[in-house]
Amino acid sequence: MSHPAVHPVDVLPEPPADNAAAAAAPRVRMKDFPGVAGSPCGLFLRLAQSFFAIGACLVMATTSDFPSVSAFCFLVAASGLQILWSLSLVVLDIYAISVKRKFCKRGALILFTAGDMITSTLIFSAACASAGITVLIDNDLQSCSKNHCVQFETSTGMAFMTWFFCLPSFLLNFLSLNSQ
Amino acid sequence: MSHPAVHPVDVLPEPPADNAAAAAAPRVRMKDFPGVAGSPCGLFLRLAQSFFAIGACLVMATTSDFPSVSAFCFLVAASGLQILWSLSLVVLDIYAISVKRKFCKRGALILFTAGDMITSTLIFSAACASAGITVLIDNDLQSCSKNHCVQFETSTGMAFMTWFFCLPSFLLNFLSLNSQ
Repeated sequence: MSHPAVHPVDVLPEPPADNAAAAAAPRVRMKDFPGVAGSPCGLFLRLAQSFFAIGACLVMATTSDFPSVSAFCFLVAASGLQILWSLSLVVLDIYAISVKRKFCKRGALILFTAGDMITSTLIFSAACASAGITVLIDNDLQSCSKNHCVQFETSTGMAFMTWFFCLPSFLLNFLSLNSQ
Repeated sequence: MSHPAVHPVDVLPEPPADNAAAAAAPRVRMKDFPGVAGSPCGLFLRLAQSFFAIGACLVMATTSDFPSVSAFCFLVAASGLQILWSLSLVVLDIYAISVKRKFCKRGALILFTAGDMITSTLIFSAACASAGITVLIDNDLQSCSKNHCVQFETSTGMAFMTWFFCLPSFLLNFLSLNSQ
């Protein structure tokens, strides 16, 4: 199916050509997505996710009082999970690029899409919860002098950046899955 | 591709049949999504979104001190936008069902998908920010006696329910758009 007949010679040349065109259409469409798992663009997205998740986790962990706020603990946990997920996929992407293949199997794409959906939802919810607390401390209570507002805000911003790079990974894998 | 020729009789009957089958395939696939705009299931999703968004907005508005916290103001604003969007689509869905048609035009589907993406992201981020504040007041500071914890939690829960019913609308419209 993936290797259409190139030189049809005998009685029925047209139907195989039509079938081959019909069979080739969704495959070509699938390869149009640039950031899908196993592509250089996909690897870039994973590296960016890992970088910002590590940043968010480290900056938050440098403050002494983050464990007293549940939302900040959730941010550290979600960043940790994101780091594990993204670094695993960095390894897989490097392997796929080195052997010049892409992940086209439905099972692999379902796994990547589900994993991206879970991790991106978690990191986005953690970033929003932390942003709520940060705005409360900074704008509403105006008690930044007693808290590490700069670190909290930097960490929250990096968590939002992580989500920003997660979203294309999720959407492109989801589109690839649907176009199969 | 999925319907091989069963009775080849003469020289050229098959290509039109193959072409017809190939052309019909994506249309049939598109109609498979049950909760797409203009269907009864889509109307149910819109009604549920409107119900929970109105609930979240009203419950939060009954507390006197919600304007002092930015995250709660954001929740009220996001719920308001969600109410406007969902009720508009309730009207459109009722019209589409009454004339027994579905929204199949690409422009309409792009509009619905973009609107759903924006409103669901806003309501989810508002719900997460409010949940962060609510958990801070309730668990971390344990000062529910001085605050309207029950109303804050109810409103946050209803905002999460709104998002829960927004997500299928967004995903199904997105899938329909992609399958066209």
